Amino acid sequence: MLVYGIHAVSEALQRLPQASAGTLWLSASRRERSVQALLERAKALELRVREVRREKLDQLAPGAVHQGVVLEAEAFCYSELDTVLERAKSRNASIIMILDGIQDPQNLGALLRTASAFGLLGVIIPKDRAASVNATAIKASAGAALHLPVVRVPNLARAIEQVQEAGYWVYGATGDAKLRAEDCDWNGHIALVMGAEGQGLRRLTRERCDHLLRLDHDKRMESLNVSVAAGILLYLVSRAQVG
Amino acid sequence: MLVYGIHAVSEALQRLPQASAGTLWLSASRRERSVQALLERAKALELRVREVRREKLDQLAPGAVHQGVVLEAEAFCYSELDTVLERAKSRNASIIMILDGIQDPQNLGALLRTASAFGLLGVIIPKDRAASVNATAIKASAGAALHLPVVRVPNLARAIEQVQEAGYWVYGATGDAKLRAEDCDWNGHIALVMGAEGQGLRRLTRERCDHLLRLDHDKRMESLNVSVAAGILLYLVSRAQVG
Repeated sequence: MLVYGIHAVSEALQRLPQASAGTLWLSASRRERSVQALLERAKALELRVREVRREKLDQLAPGAVHQGVVLEAEAFCYSELDTVLERAKSRNASIIMILDGIQDPQNLGALLRTASAFGLLGVIIPKDRAASVNATAIKASAGAALHLPVVRVPNLARAIEQVQEAGYWVYGATGDAKLRAEDCDWNGHIALVMGAEGQGLRRLTRERCDHLLRLDHDKRMESLNVSVAAGILLYLVSRAQVG
Repeated sequence: MLVYGIHAVSEALQRLPQASAGTLWLSASRRERSVQALLERAKALELRVREVRREKLDQLAPGAVHQGVVLEAEAFCYSELDTVLERAKSRNASIIMILDGIQDPQNLGALLRTASAFGLLGVIIPKDRAASVNATAIKASAGAALHLPVVRVPNLARAIEQVQEAGYWVYGATGDAKLRAEDCDWNGHIALVMGAEGQGLRRLTRERCDHLLRLDHDKRMESLNVSVAAGILLYLVSRAQVG
């Protein structure tokens, strides 16, 4: 979204949630207190701030009375876990994905894109030591991040418990599992847990899973990118649920 | 590979094939004609050139007599189509992938990584209007590009003919196909053709394929990233060939 003018930008910045991604463009000649306030709010939201020449603002918002202030923002609102789990109640089957510490926002975005393509109810990510849904992730998701509920939780193991209490079977993907994905029974509500690039699932996460599974007997599979591996697994689950 | 010293770097630059990726590090204080010649050759090869302080070179090549010149290169050699097709002769079944004009080197790299993980004999890309295996693609492939034969051809339709003459069934992936991937008979030698991001298969390419297939009945599938879609299809083919 593109917002311009001091009042509109001020209002938009108040409404923007914490995890928004975007840029506040300021005319370098504006130094008033009202502009300073916008600047501080933008910094608190961790938006990019760019001081540019007025002509650049004219380009960004052609013909607009921008008063030297243009906000370009992609608002990202995290969802509540309860809300996502509530939606599962009206269905016989559904899929959610739990990401155990994905570090690279590009990978996170790719995973969200795939999750959205397979119609997942939501994706759960940890608050700490993991990529958040920032501008890079939103871009890599090809916009899918803006439609798909993403839940950010302080404690992933606890979230897995809640997911289980809501009726989900939790499957952790790991190369050393005995169970093959193709031999799984994918009926009902399925939560698929994918580990971080290189690291795999953390011990606490593994222990919480109902089942551990691997993609194939082939060791080379471990060299698949996490979003490709997730794509194959989600394909298998969603096909079984449709069929 | 890391090469240092004026003579060694000069020789390495002569041997490096056109599509190599890498960086030539020069001490900013060196301005002789011999160094200028290296610089020009590096630029012709489209390598990155960085002029840095001598201390940086000491870090790159510790203890080496680098004479102010360090070359860091990942040589990428394209393979010949004949060589790849020759390897198919000793097997009952194999897979190759044909990429019809992938634009983004990141996507190309991701596709090569997936191709390598599934043990493909090779990947064919067009010479024109498509990403080549540059440094970005090699990095995105997590190094897989350096092990997997990649063939670059001037005429993709002609290459498809050669592939067919070598005994391959050529399947083009496109959202509007009638045939579902899961209903395909994947016996023998299979060539999977993936279209460019957004564009899909070009008309000439489509017409050359033996079969067109789609991933699923779900229209949303078209919103999958090309490397994820390829991953799912390659999974289906390779599983059928093993089983």
